[in-house]
Amino acid sequence: MQLGMIGLGKMGGNMAARLRDKGHEVIGYDVNPELRDVDSIAELVERLSAPRTVWLMVPAGEPTRNTIRELADLLDEGDLVIEGGNSHYRDDRVHADELARRGIEYLDAGVSGGIWGRENGYGIMVGGSAENVARAKPIFDALTPEAGSGFVHAGEIGAGHFVKMVHNGIEYGMMQAFAEGYELMAASGIVKDVPGTLASWRQGTVVRSWLLDLLVRALEEDPELEQLRGYAEDSGEGRWTVQAAVDHAVPAPVITAALYARFASRQEDSPAMKVIAALRNQFGGHAVVKKNTD
Amino acid sequence: MQLGMIGLGKMGGNMAARLRDKGHEVIGYDVNPELRDVDSIAELVERLSAPRTVWLMVPAGEPTRNTIRELADLLDEGDLVIEGGNSHYRDDRVHADELARRGIEYLDAGVSGGIWGRENGYGIMVGGSAENVARAKPIFDALTPEAGSGFVHAGEIGAGHFVKMVHNGIEYGMMQAFAEGYELMAASGIVKDVPGTLASWRQGTVVRSWLLDLLVRALEEDPELEQLRGYAEDSGEGRWTVQAAVDHAVPAPVITAALYARFASRQEDSPAMKVIAALRNQFGGHAVVKKNTD
Amino acid sequence: MQLGMIGLGKMGGNMAARLRDKGHEVIGYDVNPELRDVDSIAELVERLSAPRTVWLMVPAGEPTRNTIRELADLLDEGDLVIEGGNSHYRDDRVHADELARRGIEYLDAGVSGGIWGRENGYGIMVGGSAENVARAKPIFDALTPEAGSGFVHAGEIGAGHFVKMVHNGIEYGMMQAFAEGYELMAASGIVKDVPGTLASWRQGTVVRSWLLDLLVRALEEDPELEQLRGYAEDSGEGRWTVQAAVDHAVPAPVITAALYARFASRQEDSPAMKVIAALRNQFGGHAVVKKNTD
Amino acid sequence: MQLGMIGLGKMGGNMAARLRDKGHEVIGYDVNPELRDVDSIAELVERLSAPRTVWLMVPAGEPTRNTIRELADLLDEGDLVIEGGNSHYRDDRVHADELARRGIEYLDAGVSGGIWGRENGYGIMVGGSAENVARAKPIFDALTPEAGSGFVHAGEIGAGHFVKMVHNGIEYGMMQAFAEGYELMAASGIVKDVPGTLASWRQGTVVRSWLLDLLVRALEEDPELEQLRGYAEDSGEGRWTVQAAVDHAVPAPVITAALYARFASRQEDSPAMKVIAALRNQFGGHAVVKKNTD
Repeated sequence: MQLGMIGLGKMGGNMAARLRDKGHEVIGYDVNPELRDVDSIAELVERLSAPRTVWLMVPAGEPTRNTIRELADLLDEGDLVIEGGNSHYRDDRVHADELARRGIEYLDAGVSGGIWGRENGYGIMVGGSAENVARAKPIFDALTPEAGSGFVHAGEIGAGHFVKMVHNGIEYGMMQAFAEGYELMAASGIVKDVPGTLASWRQGTVVRSWLLDLLVRALEEDPELEQLRGYAEDSGEGRWTVQAAVDHAVPAPVITAALYARFASRQEDSPAMKVIAALRNQFGGHAVVKKNTD
Repeated sequence: MQLGMIGLGKMGGNMAARLRDKGHEVIGYDVNPELRDVDSIAELVERLSAPRTVWLMVPAGEPTRNTIRELADLLDEGDLVIEGGNSHYRDDRVHADELARRGIEYLDAGVSGGIWGRENGYGIMVGGSAENVARAKPIFDALTPEAGSGFVHAGEIGAGHFVKMVHNGIEYGMMQAFAEGYELMAASGIVKDVPGTLASWRQGTVVRSWLLDLLVRALEEDPELEQLRGYAEDSGEGRWTVQAAVDHAVPAPVITAALYARFASRQEDSPAMKVIAALRNQFGGHAVVKKNTD
Repeated sequence: MQLGMIGLGKMGGNMAARLRDKGHEVIGYDVNPELRDVDSIAELVERLSAPRTVWLMVPAGEPTRNTIRELADLLDEGDLVIEGGNSHYRDDRVHADELARRGIEYLDAGVSGGIWGRENGYGIMVGGSAENVARAKPIFDALTPEAGSGFVHAGEIGAGHFVKMVHNGIEYGMMQAFAEGYELMAASGIVKDVPGTLASWRQGTVVRSWLLDLLVRALEEDPELEQLRGYAEDSGEGRWTVQAAVDHAVPAPVITAALYARFASRQEDSPAMKVIAALRNQFGGHAVVKKNTD
Repeated sequence: MQLGMIGLGKMGGNMAARLRDKGHEVIGYDVNPELRDVDSIAELVERLSAPRTVWLMVPAGEPTRNTIRELADLLDEGDLVIEGGNSHYRDDRVHADELARRGIEYLDAGVSGGIWGRENGYGIMVGGSAENVARAKPIFDALTPEAGSGFVHAGEIGAGHFVKMVHNGIEYGMMQAFAEGYELMAASGIVKDVPGTLASWRQGTVVRSWLLDLLVRALEEDPELEQLRGYAEDSGEGRWTVQAAVDHAVPAPVITAALYARFASRQEDSPAMKVIAALRNQFGGHAVVKKNTD
């Protein structure tokens, strides 16, 4: 089928390519002139035949909000917008309401798979009405690994982004579990072959997983991770998962610990640990590490 | 090759069967007369041709220690004992020293794969000398999924059980990550199809893994896990991982949180939380839940 | 000075009493006719001489919001509202803006001290302009333990409730630290006199604190806390602290762990731990605790 | 009464001074010739009248073990050794057994109070027999803040060091709670007076405590803690508390998080977080921070 794709970066560009490979017609727009087929969203809308389907793959927050507003003005009743970026699940309700005032339909779609998705297919999690899901099914089928798998209609508006958010929270926890295990093996002195141990786990063990495959791959390139600093950004989704857990009174110690480890990794120095140092000095006369003596 | 196997329970029995399927001769002993080929360890030793190889697959602690002692008396110089149970990595040193006094060789082997190992093969992680590893290689090759994979010679004596221990620690963290994500989706109200969402993640997503496959399988049998109580034992290995992390000053918040969640799951009531209730009552006059009114 | 107090419950009632003891004139309104001096907020406003000062001590959220709106209609330019309840610090901005449109001044005040405050005085943390703080200073002085202590002007609008929120987050962490230590001593078997140990810590040790005093007091009444269940509610402020930490990328593992322990204490059964049980059963054939066999 | 004191460092020296102030006769030995009254432990034993009481205040582990052995040779039946250092509670059993073979009595004593103890008195927690406790009571009375307080006979051999260990674990949790709250206030932007806020909490609030007093004091000297690095050692007792919690299946998330925060504070770079960076790079093509570009 025919699809407009707004946002042709690392994710959107690969998705458009996969859709074209599978025989769909994709007309793409991006702020970067080198990536795009049309020069404006207005032109994109014009080029699509009604009822149109437009997939958004732009950064969450302001950029997505603004594009939704622009589409609300340009699209016609019965057109369908699929927000495939990383919107907060509560914003989906806002987007859907804004478009509904003009009779425009809305689906939210969480997309997983990273840069490997073009080749392997993506995991797609969708929120919205069954009618709209059915309408966009050919697109979902082309994006997912094989027809029928890697896809879920998770619930009403927002449910797609909610489960994608939880997926990312789980991902944080799994990554941190491997990270802690790696550090413990490396620190133990007893393990002579850490990369080989991880590689051996790819078969037959309980922890076999795609993340393990990736870790093995990273260690093949840099066996002691000497090229990297222990510094990790966090996307909004880890934070949102923790905040949703707090909202619903769900204990989420593992996901939260993984998030906090990332926060800490980005601190030059820890104000909290200065307090610990100050207190130890106060009550115990413990030596402290002064800034300038270090 | 020929192998003596002591302990023919869920793990040892399946391993013996897999080894026989692959053409090895296994003579087995177990405390349960219905499972064994010989009626005593002495008879087992007698039946094996020197230099012998004996694989131990009995419960960690006392039973393993006693069997090692018995073998130290029965075996001859040049024989090889492989401790494949869940011994603590520090006990391996003790076992190896005890056997070395009689000239008996020792390897420690961590085995992963659970009840699926017979069919899929096991992950095997070994500690000890390269000579002994080479000597037992045919056995390792038969147990692992395919020759060359699922196997690592991790280091000297104890390294096999150390990495198996860490493997289990990571497993705890991964399981807890899925568990928290599941609970959050179930509590959210917004996700209408939790089992379907998890099933969709098996393809294309970052969290795809054998544990996810198993969770999907469990939910196919019992979609809301109504048959189960939220009660989880812990094997020693999760505890040892945390204690090793503390010994080596390695922060392991995720693995530890997963362990503590299991501890808490087994408490009828929490003494710690009684203290919280008592304090809230003291300073705030907050209502507390009394035992007998509940 | 003269003060209108809206909300005469456990906190507001005691504060009004303390203010009167110190010579201030308090006119009180409460939804409960038995507690109040006037029958409506309108009557309260009428009874106060301009420029008026009205202290709010009603539940956070809807009740506070509604009272602010009513006061916006009733008060005159130059009057001052002090929101002393547990409003979220972001709501203070909304309240202040709403009142400012009528020329009415606003302070937010976090109040600590619980039911002991009437006797010991309260800790008061205030956000807003220096002018308004100066104006209400006699009230603050009467409420705090002694002139000059137990009081801080923490910053602009919202700062009072922000630091009160953090205060409560710290309180959660401290309480949980004592709770864990208590449980460990009780579980150890080696400690014959847990209440006596805690009592001994009140003098000379690093952990001496008001919370310890209260714990000792609770154990005097019920030495094994047999009358209580390990069940703890959480006020909004623990949750807000964690969410603020996440917003500001501040690792807060201790405060968060304390919050999650409360969440867990309120669950009849843990969906997350059902997942763990299900997974252990899947991969290891581990026995699980079935609902109906328990 | 008369007491031999071995170890006259920061703790032992102050304790000896306090005991002398209270009228006791203290004969002291230390490896440092400038601090001691006698030149050897043998001379110390000679100078004391039987039945002797000797208080040990030397570093835990090897030094304490060696001193116990030396005393076992030098002391006579009926003499009493009080181990007041930071021995692991399991070592107390070993010490007591070694001395018991010669008929020498043993008490273990946990001591809290830091450098402030000389002036304020110490918290003393003792394990051992009631007879031995009664015998040394005059010493305990002189060390504790006032007769009858700051002292507990916690249980049999080891109980004194066990509860001191738990005390320190609780201390870790309380310190970290303040540290997190401090960092959150400092990061918020909304709190203009963090030291003033903390100072105000000393009166009337739930978190008032000696640790808060010390933090306020530290901030008076260095209001933004600019002189310090966020680097904190841990004594063995925090680690032992976590290991004891794991041994007894007691969830201790707060105490453990506080310990891990100290571990992390001492890492130049985190191997675990390198793994996170490597994984993010693998699956998402996320930019990573390379070592040499930093």
